[in-house]
Amino acid sequence: MALGIGDDAALLNVTPGQQLVMASDTLVAGVHFPETASGRQVATRALCVNLSDMAAMGANPRWFTLALTLPRDKANAEWLADFSAGLGDIAKQQGVALVGGDTTSGPLTLTLTLVGEVPAGEALTRGGAGPGDSVFVTGYLGDGAASLEAITNNKSLHIDSDRLLQRFYSPQPQIQAGLKLRAIASACIDISDGLMADLGHICKASGVTAVIQTEQLPIAAEILELSPLDALEWALCGGDDYQLCFTVAADHLAKVDALIELGELDARRIGTINPGDQSISPVSVIDKNKTLLTVVKPGYNHFGN
Amino acid sequence: MALGIGDDAALLNVTPGQQLVMASDTLVAGVHFPETASGRQVATRALCVNLSDMAAMGANPRWFTLALTLPRDKANAEWLADFSAGLGDIAKQQGVALVGGDTTSGPLTLTLTLVGEVPAGEALTRGGAGPGDSVFVTGYLGDGAASLEAITNNKSLHIDSDRLLQRFYSPQPQIQAGLKLRAIASACIDISDGLMADLGHICKASGVTAVIQTEQLPIAAEILELSPLDALEWALCGGDDYQLCFTVAADHLAKVDALIELGELDARRIGTINPGDQSISPVSVIDKNKTLLTVVKPGYNHFGN
Repeated sequence: MALGIGDDAALLNVTPGQQLVMASDTLVAGVHFPETASGRQVATRALCVNLSDMAAMGANPRWFTLALTLPRDKANAEWLADFSAGLGDIAKQQGVALVGGDTTSGPLTLTLTLVGEVPAGEALTRGGAGPGDSVFVTGYLGDGAASLEAITNNKSLHIDSDRLLQRFYSPQPQIQAGLKLRAIASACIDISDGLMADLGHICKASGVTAVIQTEQLPIAAEILELSPLDALEWALCGGDDYQLCFTVAADHLAKVDALIELGELDARRIGTINPGDQSISPVSVIDKNKTLLTVVKPGYNHFGN
Repeated sequence: MALGIGDDAALLNVTPGQQLVMASDTLVAGVHFPETASGRQVATRALCVNLSDMAAMGANPRWFTLALTLPRDKANAEWLADFSAGLGDIAKQQGVALVGGDTTSGPLTLTLTLVGEVPAGEALTRGGAGPGDSVFVTGYLGDGAASLEAITNNKSLHIDSDRLLQRFYSPQPQIQAGLKLRAIASACIDISDGLMADLGHICKASGVTAVIQTEQLPIAAEILELSPLDALEWALCGGDDYQLCFTVAADHLAKVDALIELGELDARRIGTINPGDQSISPVSVIDKNKTLLTVVKPGYNHFGN
């Protein structure tokens, strides 16, 4: 960057020929993460969640500002050092620079604003899915909801998994997948509210409907063992997965298959896009017997309030 | 903009040849404005204060995101309509577009992140002041501190001034002045913490010192009448003025004088830049008899807590 923290604002050099991608997200203690989370956990989750929006646009994240509201019990060198180390690690790993921000006193709240770059005209949006397109997701689904159960100490599940804790506090933003899907995917979104809700956003923006096949859903063996009854609902409706859901038209399908075959893209086909139809819900789910399932979306989970 | 609110992020077209200027500011109810402020007052103050950072850089503000944390008593259509109308009016007036954001539930807090553009290499910074430069300020000084007294109902002052209330809730960001000072000013800052503190930032960043002449300070007649004893301290140390303080080298002085003469720039010369000297404070104040004054900076004013 041309000029960083310390002046009235940061001065940034945009790469010629690029469009900007800009998004803000706020995380509130007790709502988006438990009050007991460590500084490092808070920092990594906040940055990862925000980076996920960049991934969904196929953008290369470049800069971010941080507005941090801190309560007195956390405004100490130890908490801040832990927080800064966590933020620095993810920023370095993802190649994004902190260029400014503000700190105020109050209940623990973070607002991050990220700016990324994408070659002009190549951004992935929600609005390009067409009938006949295939629906894909990256990684595993349901980890987010299962990790939320682990965090909130649902005793009946006996969850004791470092992998799930890691998935909650450091959800891996799918930046590299987003970059590879430019000029290949017809639409893309990150799964923050749950597959059905987020694929529903693609359907709405594109004027189409979608059908998902349950036997194609990528669910980690650990999750299936943990709670076979919950696993499907977690995968369909659980939030916080921060994987990408994207659609691909028939003429680009071979490119996606090749990326998957070469190990350059961790993704799986889970369904199909159909024409718009206002008489049915935007996203339908069928099992291996082609039976239409009724999915009841659970309420949004808060932390103890 | 290419794509606005409704996708994972906004997609923005940068003007070729421009650098970006990016800044975030948080305003907390009860700290940065009174709990009793109306939606419109909160919105206009938040956007104006953030725009002031763009003015200080000589940037043309283009886009902003808003992260709004709302308590239950304000999460209603009436408060939000008033807030949105205020935000919209300032945004339209200053040519800046809301491109995204986030709303959460909690104590009233706003974080705005603005992105502006400036022709490459022409941004105004704090670091370019040199010995022999003249120090200028735009508009009047002390209005911010006086308006704070008005807001906090300091009865001993009998303040009843719509102009001052307006100055607090809608401080006019000096965007046009900033644009005109590109390639003219050697350093620039907006006065948010008080003239002495903010000119001190220029001195520190530039490795120089400054002398201010009290009889040159632009103080509104209203303020002088209100409290002759306080007026000088308000002008020197009061925050919230959101005027620009800038320095100009001798070879550009005629340009500034011409802009002022033509009525295109409302500014006044208030002092001089001297070489760096670690044995004195960065900013000295002398009266018309050239007597050095001792200025005791008052503490930061909170609202009732």
